[in-house]
Amino acid sequence: MHAVLLKGHGGLDQLEYRTDVAVPQPGPNEVLIQVAAAGINNTDINTRLGWYSKSVDQATNVGGATGFDDVNDDDASWSGRALTFPLIQGADCCGHIVAVGSDVDPARIGERVLVRNMLRSYVDYRPYECWTLGSECNGSFAQFAVAPARETHRVACDWSDEELASIPCAYSTAENMLHRIGLGAETVLITGASGGVGSAAVQLAKRRGATVIALCSAAKADEVLACGADRVIDRNADLIAELGKGALDAVVDLVGGEQWPVFLELLRRGGRYAIAGAIAGPIAEIDLRTLYLKDLTLAGCTFQKDEVFANLIAYIEAGEIRPQVAKTFPLHEIAQAQEAFISKQHMGKLVLTIPQVEQ
Amino acid sequence: MHAVLLKGHGGLDQLEYRTDVAVPQPGPNEVLIQVAAAGINNTDINTRLGWYSKSVDQATNVGGATGFDDVNDDDASWSGRALTFPLIQGADCCGHIVAVGSDVDPARIGERVLVRNMLRSYVDYRPYECWTLGSECNGSFAQFAVAPARETHRVACDWSDEELASIPCAYSTAENMLHRIGLGAETVLITGASGGVGSAAVQLAKRRGATVIALCSAAKADEVLACGADRVIDRNADLIAELGKGALDAVVDLVGGEQWPVFLELLRRGGRYAIAGAIAGPIAEIDLRTLYLKDLTLAGCTFQKDEVFANLIAYIEAGEIRPQVAKTFPLHEIAQAQEAFISKQHMGKLVLTIPQVEQ
Repeated sequence: MHAVLLKGHGGLDQLEYRTDVAVPQPGPNEVLIQVAAAGINNTDINTRLGWYSKSVDQATNVGGATGFDDVNDDDASWSGRALTFPLIQGADCCGHIVAVGSDVDPARIGERVLVRNMLRSYVDYRPYECWTLGSECNGSFAQFAVAPARETHRVACDWSDEELASIPCAYSTAENMLHRIGLGAETVLITGASGGVGSAAVQLAKRRGATVIALCSAAKADEVLACGADRVIDRNADLIAELGKGALDAVVDLVGGEQWPVFLELLRRGGRYAIAGAIAGPIAEIDLRTLYLKDLTLAGCTFQKDEVFANLIAYIEAGEIRPQVAKTFPLHEIAQAQEAFISKQHMGKLVLTIPQVEQ
Repeated sequence: MHAVLLKGHGGLDQLEYRTDVAVPQPGPNEVLIQVAAAGINNTDINTRLGWYSKSVDQATNVGGATGFDDVNDDDASWSGRALTFPLIQGADCCGHIVAVGSDVDPARIGERVLVRNMLRSYVDYRPYECWTLGSECNGSFAQFAVAPARETHRVACDWSDEELASIPCAYSTAENMLHRIGLGAETVLITGASGGVGSAAVQLAKRRGATVIALCSAAKADEVLACGADRVIDRNADLIAELGKGALDAVVDLVGGEQWPVFLELLRRGGRYAIAGAIAGPIAEIDLRTLYLKDLTLAGCTFQKDEVFANLIAYIEAGEIRPQVAKTFPLHEIAQAQEAFISKQHMGKLVLTIPQVEQ
């Protein structure tokens, strides 16, 4: 089959397009999926770079195309485990089930599906553990992929394959944050709102009836408003002057950085804060009096409970969300797609289309 | 009636013992309580000192006996409001109902009661607001006190008045922390474990089946073990060397300070942290990656939901907790009692006994 093999940690030259890769076989409780489309995500690039290695302390973009010199291969995966090469990456997988392993109902063959990118089957559903599709196991940058049957969700909708392939990684990360803090029809600030997770959070917060105040660069303000935000504020603005202390019920944060203590000042008593990234920097100062006298809750969000992905499928089928595909690339142009992703000139998802085989 | 009047912010000389104070009258939905015993707490002393004023930045003990020079009377209460003098302090109130206001069933006369110290009636049960008994309204350092009927709880047990008067402030603060993080039969670290709230947290965590690791000074280790802790560690020890990263399900913290980032390192993935004080200092550094990659929850704990105090009453009646009264003082020796409290040589509660009137 056609597939992109990652030969090792490094730059774009580590991605090798091949047409002679063996089609994988589904094991017990697994399905074989003919892949139709696969989204481009930070996590795939970070994994290629080895950026998750504790020996790397630079921003992803610094080594995006050429890699880093200081990767330690032993801890350079998302989960801190060493990877096995060659690896087929790809966290976002949209396609059809074409075969099933033992213990899976053959009636599932033909289902149009999305795979949960944070896989729990392979870690026996232990809390707070997961494998990422395309990281600890092979993923969607190929004509065929295997996945756990229980984590391969049937989807009934009229979306294109590219639209569906935009969902798993970004939307599940965003929905998980809202789920963790139980966001309702409240006032929420979303940072990094023009990014893949941020823009998903804007849509998913609106779906919950929230009033969304979005932080992003001035250049992307119009696109973030078009995505559904009620108000956009420049990320360098004086937020206390703009909003006032105690104005927010919740903050959904992907940015962190020096501005971080201000986010807590903006929360009302009893306010909730969720975080799933810190692209502006991970070290911040906390005034513990603010935390306890205001009865705040701060929630770190990486692991996802089962209902998060199941809920997303329901939102798709009910037509409650709609992803924005900025551009598609054929699989063999994966390097150009990742270069476009790194340049961050787009708003919405970049998606790979997979060459279909005759059956 | 006999009562201690606080004349203004300041030292022990602001406490005036009087025998000619008018007995208060219960208003609608209030009860009149003949007070039997009243615990000594930090919050009463802090309020007397004006330590809650933002213009004061020293430790309580610095001004405990003589007061501070730099109090701003306008913001020197627990809730940030100005107090009205003279004030009858006292957050812990144990006694009997002797009269009721309109809209209260007279059948309640005779009940032996504890008053919830964090009163919600006076702020219309608005979330995250409360008045403290003896701070925003008169409290228990008197022969009679009024309190909202709904927040005055009947207690059926064979405890002494002094034992019952040890409960409200310290135990409700501690139980609220455990309630907020849903502590179960898990491994929990409790800081400041020899203090009033800390030692209550030790007992209440044991009641929930937890394995309790307590931090305190070496001098009080034996007493904290006697209180129920499974293990005591000196508060200046290298906790990562003693326990290892990821060893704890939960941390219950009253101390904060420079050691704070270590508490997060000690938590497992999915661990929970509760805080209700920061006597070692309020400013700390946070690594946001630790917060989100480990799926931590940090919970600030001041406001108490209604069930917290109701649950405490049930624990008392079931004999599941037992306070430790270190010493009692008659009401007119309140200055000596507070001096003993500030010297922190005791383990357990100091309690005032109230002279009883003939009826």
